[in-house]
Amino acid sequence: MKLSSKLTSMVALGTMVATAAAASEPIQPIRPVQSVNLAQVELGKKLYFDPRLSRSGFISCNSCHNLSMGGTDNLKTSIGHNWQEGPINAPTVLNSSLNVAQFWDGRARDLKEQAGGPIENPKEMAFSHTLTIHVLQSIPEYAIEFKQVFGVDEITIDEVTEAIAEFEKTLVTPNSRFDRWLLGEQEAITAQELAGYELFKTSGCAACHNGEAVGGTSFQKMGIVEPYQTSNPVEGRIAVTGKDADRFTFKVPTLRNVELTYPYFHDGEAETLTEAVDIMGRLQLGRKYTPDENHQIVAFLKTLTGEQPTFQLPILPPSRQDTPRPRPFD
Amino acid sequence: MKLSSKLTSMVALGTMVATAAAASEPIQPIRPVQSVNLAQVELGKKLYFDPRLSRSGFISCNSCHNLSMGGTDNLKTSIGHNWQEGPINAPTVLNSSLNVAQFWDGRARDLKEQAGGPIENPKEMAFSHTLTIHVLQSIPEYAIEFKQVFGVDEITIDEVTEAIAEFEKTLVTPNSRFDRWLLGEQEAITAQELAGYELFKTSGCAACHNGEAVGGTSFQKMGIVEPYQTSNPVEGRIAVTGKDADRFTFKVPTLRNVELTYPYFHDGEAETLTEAVDIMGRLQLGRKYTPDENHQIVAFLKTLTGEQPTFQLPILPPSRQDTPRPRPFD
Repeated sequence: MKLSSKLTSMVALGTMVATAAAASEPIQPIRPVQSVNLAQVELGKKLYFDPRLSRSGFISCNSCHNLSMGGTDNLKTSIGHNWQEGPINAPTVLNSSLNVAQFWDGRARDLKEQAGGPIENPKEMAFSHTLTIHVLQSIPEYAIEFKQVFGVDEITIDEVTEAIAEFEKTLVTPNSRFDRWLLGEQEAITAQELAGYELFKTSGCAACHNGEAVGGTSFQKMGIVEPYQTSNPVEGRIAVTGKDADRFTFKVPTLRNVELTYPYFHDGEAETLTEAVDIMGRLQLGRKYTPDENHQIVAFLKTLTGEQPTFQLPILPPSRQDTPRPRPFD
Repeated sequence: MKLSSKLTSMVALGTMVATAAAASEPIQPIRPVQSVNLAQVELGKKLYFDPRLSRSGFISCNSCHNLSMGGTDNLKTSIGHNWQEGPINAPTVLNSSLNVAQFWDGRARDLKEQAGGPIENPKEMAFSHTLTIHVLQSIPEYAIEFKQVFGVDEITIDEVTEAIAEFEKTLVTPNSRFDRWLLGEQEAITAQELAGYELFKTSGCAACHNGEAVGGTSFQKMGIVEPYQTSNPVEGRIAVTGKDADRFTFKVPTLRNVELTYPYFHDGEAETLTEAVDIMGRLQLGRKYTPDENHQIVAFLKTLTGEQPTFQLPILPPSRQDTPRPRPFD
C-alpha cells in the first residue's frame, strides 16, 4: 500500500469515527457552505451593504446585522429611521439559513421573505419596494448586473430579496472549537468547557438548543417554569398564528457565536452570558445553577464561536442624475 | 545588450517622458501609498469600523465616510447622534492625507487631529475620549493590540487617533484613467475628456483645483465673482482665524473620485456634477459654460475616479462584562 492511499484510508476512517461521534450528540458541526449561485451572492453582498435601500440613505442591512460584530448590532433593540427605537433585539444573520423560519416570531418563511421586511418597515429602513426598484434600476451598473444574474430587464423586489438571501446563505461560521471537538479533535476544548457541555445536555438546555445551529429549529415559550418579566410588549408567535397557546412563544435563537451576539433574549435585557444562563436555567428549567455551573456553561458557549465570514468590503456603484435622492430629514 | 536590460531602459525612458509630461501639468498623478506602519493600519482599520467609538454604539467613522461609497455618505449633510442633522457636507476621506489641513475650515492640522473631533462632537458620535478609552481598554484583544503596536499599557486618545490616521493614509486612489493619461497612456482618456481637461485649465478651474488631489491645497472664497446664496449658516475659515477676510472661505475640496462624492459644496446643495460645474463657472470664474462645455468638463471629472481601496471587512473583538454599554436612547 502506498503512503498516499494509506493516508487516505486513515483520513476516511477518522471521518467515520468523528461522524459517528457527532451523530450521537444533539449538536452537529456546521457544514461549510454547499451550493450557492456565486453571481447572486456578489450582487446580494452589494445590496446588503447599500444604504440606498433605506429612505434616509443611511441604513443598510449591515447597520443592524453588522458583519463586523457577529451579524448583529449589539444593542438592546435596534435604531431605525429617524432614530426610532425598535421593538425587538436584532437576531444575528450568521447561520440564519439554518433557522426553521425568520424573525423572532417566525413570520417569514425563509431568508428571501425576511429580506423584504425591514426595507418597508416604517420603524426600520422606512422605504418602499417600489422606490428601492427605482433606485436600483436608475443605476446602470446595478441594471446590468441584475440582467446578467437574473436575465431581467425590469428589476423587481423578487430578484432583490433573492440575491440578498443568497448572500446570507454564505454567512455560516464553521470550524468553531466545539465543532472541531465534535469532529474528533479532542484537545480542541478544555475539561471545563467539556463539563459545561455535559451540564448543558443533562440539565436540559439541549432539548431546545440543538442541531447544527444549536437552536433555530423550534418555537418555545419564554418562561416555562416561571414567567418572564419584561416591559417589552412584544408577544411572539401569537402575532402569526393567532393562537393563545403561542402567546410569548419565540423562535429558539441560535447559540452559535453567542459570545458575539450580546445582549440576549428578544428584548435584549440580558447583558451578559452569565445573566442569560442564570435566567434560562431558572425560567425554562426550574434550576438555579451554582456560580461554578454557570461558569462552566458559559465556557462551553464560548467554544461555539466559529470562523467569521471574511470578504472584501463591496464598492457600490454611484447614483445617477435621475436616481431618487435619500430623504433623511423629511 | 540583453533583452531584460533593454526593457529596463525602455521602461526608464517611458517613465522619464511621462514624468516630464506630468510635471508640466497642474495635476500630478496620485502616488501609491509610500511608507506606513502596517500594524497601526490594521488596528486603525478596526477602530474606523467600530461603532463603539460613539455614544449610541451605532455610528462609526465609516458611517459618514463610507468606504463603499467614495469615502462619504452621499447625503447633503450627515446624520449624527439621535438623528441630528449635521451642519455641513461630509468630505471624503479618500486621499485626505493630501489635504493641507482637515475639515472644510481647516481647523485640524492633520488626520490625527481630525480623528478625535467627531468622537466628541455632540452632533456626531456624541461620545467622549475618556469613555472611548474605557471601552477599548476593557476589551482584551484591543488592549493587547495597542500594547503590541504602541508599547503602551494604558491606551490614550493619542494612540487611537494615530492608528485611525495611519489607516486613513492608505486610502488613496491611484491609477485613475486621468493618471494613466498623465503617465503616458494616450488612449486612457477620450478626445471629449481631453477637451474637458483643456477647458478646465484654460478657464481657470486648475488655479485652485490642482496638485495630486486636484484640490485640498488652499483655502478660497466661495463666491468670488458673484456671491453664493445658501441658507446654510456655516461661515468657513473665519471660525478658525477670526479674520473677516476669511468669511465664507473654505478648503478647496479634492476633485479625485468626484463622480462618487455627490452631493457637492460645503452645504451639499449641488446634487449633480453638471450643476456644480455650472455654479462654479459663474460664481468663481464669471463664466457661463455652454451645455457642451459643461458636458466636456463633467466628462473630464469622471476620469478622476481611481482605484478604490479594497480590503477585508474587519472583524471586531466583542465587548466584555465590564465594557461600558452603548446608550442610544438616553
